[in-house]
Amino acid sequence: MNLIEEFNAYRAKMNDKILGEDNLVIKRFFNLDTNTYAAGELDVKTKEMIGLACSMVLRCDDCIKYHLGKSHEAGLKKEEIFEVFSIALVIGGSIVIPHLRRAVEYWEELTNH
Amino acid sequence: MNLIEEFNAYRAKMNDKILGEDNLVIKRFFNLDTNTYAAGELDVKTKEMIGLACSMVLRCDDCIKYHLGKSHEAGLKKEEIFEVFSIALVIGGSIVIPHLRRAVEYWEELTNH
Amino acid sequence: MNLIEEFNAYRAKMNDKILGEDNLVIKRFFNLDTNTYAAGELDVKTKEMIGLACSMVLRCDDCIKYHLGKSHEAGLKKEEIFEVFSIALVIGGSIVIPHLRRAVEYWEELTNH
Amino acid sequence: MNLIEEFNAYRAKMNDKILGEDNLVIKRFFNLDTNTYAAGELDVKTKEMIGLACSMVLRCDDCIKYHLGKSHEAGLKKEEIFEVFSIALVIGGSIVIPHLRRAVEYWEELTNH
Amino acid sequence: MNLIEEFNAYRAKMNDKILGEDNLVIKRFFNLDTNTYAAGELDVKTKEMIGLACSMVLRCDDCIKYHLGKSHEAGLKKEEIFEVFSIALVIGGSIVIPHLRRAVEYWEELTNH
Amino acid sequence: MNLIEEFNAYRAKMNDKILGEDNLVIKRFFNLDTNTYAAGELDVKTKEMIGLACSMVLRCDDCIKYHLGKSHEAGLKKEEIFEVFSIALVIGGSIVIPHLRRAVEYWEELTNH
Repeated sequence: MNLIEEFNAYRAKMNDKILGEDNLVIKRFFNLDTNTYAAGELDVKTKEMIGLACSMVLRCDDCIKYHLGKSHEAGLKKEEIFEVFSIALVIGGSIVIPHLRRAVEYWEELTNH
Repeated sequence: MNLIEEFNAYRAKMNDKILGEDNLVIKRFFNLDTNTYAAGELDVKTKEMIGLACSMVLRCDDCIKYHLGKSHEAGLKKEEIFEVFSIALVIGGSIVIPHLRRAVEYWEELTNH
Repeated sequence: MNLIEEFNAYRAKMNDKILGEDNLVIKRFFNLDTNTYAAGELDVKTKEMIGLACSMVLRCDDCIKYHLGKSHEAGLKKEEIFEVFSIALVIGGSIVIPHLRRAVEYWEELTNH
Repeated sequence: MNLIEEFNAYRAKMNDKILGEDNLVIKRFFNLDTNTYAAGELDVKTKEMIGLACSMVLRCDDCIKYHLGKSHEAGLKKEEIFEVFSIALVIGGSIVIPHLRRAVEYWEELTNH
Repeated sequence: MNLIEEFNAYRAKMNDKILGEDNLVIKRFFNLDTNTYAAGELDVKTKEMIGLACSMVLRCDDCIKYHLGKSHEAGLKKEEIFEVFSIALVIGGSIVIPHLRRAVEYWEELTNH
Repeated sequence: MNLIEEFNAYRAKMNDKILGEDNLVIKRFFNLDTNTYAAGELDVKTKEMIGLACSMVLRCDDCIKYHLGKSHEAGLKKEEIFEVFSIALVIGGSIVIPHLRRAVEYWEELTNH
């Protein structure tokens, strides 16, 4: 199983368990999170780039994978993704680099899929 | 070996090595850390819920595992744990979600043990 | 104007402006945030202590002030508050200390009010 | 002196002092930081929104002010800015709220200028 | 009152209040914190530079002021301090810059004192 | 393959891919990052200890591994490394402990190599 399938399968399995619990605050948060990235004043591409950059400066590998997947679906191309990476790197500093390495590996899998 | 045994074995092995070194500041910190969660003005359940929530907003998987184990020992039930999760999620935002997934998986192992 | 009035006045004024805008995600987030601290499986005191500790380890002075105010309203006493402080200090380390100083000053104003 | 003039004056004065020192790494970092936001694969508006969102989730008030100023110069309108705010709020959680309050106040000054 | 006196006076006043409370964990943490920077395998200068750099990447202005004061007492010179700044800037990224500005202002006061 | 070879091989492979892309900001950042740790006003040992401590308080395992490797090459001995660990632990708090465990394991491999 490759990185993408592994990420998606675990994410789907655990989200089902979480939403299967009777906790209204968590359910509403998950719902709100989904709505946040729907097209509005900003288009989906822009929102996904913002989500990706924030995930990088906050150094959350799973969040990076999620937004890379969505960015790929939305049609963002490699040069644009690397420019997002560059902004996140300068803002977040050298501690972003290990996450950049894993992001580049995941993006490569997404585009070779 | 399941998640719980793996976590506990590595933690015990490495803590032994760390405390085996002759560094007084580190030894005293470890001792202080243990004392922090002893019953005092607040009971153990409350302290473990606080430790768990802080570990989630700081996004430290090993800290989450540790406090989930202690919360389970202290007799906290699933509905209470999920309410702690919900507070941490709203405070810390969507970057907490990947840690929530792993926390739910670990809690499930603890309660099926 | 003391610290408490200053904090509350600015918070109320700006929240009004924020909620006066037509952004549904922000409005729903604010609503969710309020609901999070309502009594449920955990009582209000416990939730406020969790909110306070998380605010300290995340080093957010305004969040600390808010939860200190709510903790005071909920009837938490000084010894309990200092035990929450002690947990946050050990988890978050010495960088929490400047926030602890300001928290103690604010708590003092709350209880002298 | 209003918030904008105060921010710009202090920033200019201290940047001059910093760049007046003979530290090559710092000088090169400042230069790289400036280049990062120049139009490339992404336009200036998109880059400023990314910079703004990252500044919010990292909770850096001065960085937020800087990118709000640049976003205003680039012609971003209020509805777009609030959508950036909403993404940062959901990603970063309720600890972003105090920074959101100050951001809204600064944006108001920028647009009333 | 200048920046240095203001910082030291507030720090001393609040530390007295904190240590005047009967919370043993907090007292022991403060004691441990002091011991950490005593000469041992590493000399005081090296420890203060480490404390300063960590304070910068964690973006804690009061911690930066404290370690700048101690670094000045220990005899570190401006070129060394700026090299510590440069390491912290590259590790922590552009969000360190606002803290760097305030650090340079405080260092200037320390050396003009 | 041990921890050291695994870390170095992945790091080298991904850095090649990243630098193989035509993104000037990223290339310049990587170059600046390398220059930061060259001997200047401070010697290499001091710079590596600073890099190590910052990596620990920022909780970046790969950054810790990198600076442990460089610290070992520079001739730092175990007692010095543990004193750096102790400073990072007190500054960053108990959330540093899981990273300390992995750091001690990696250091052990470096010195048994």
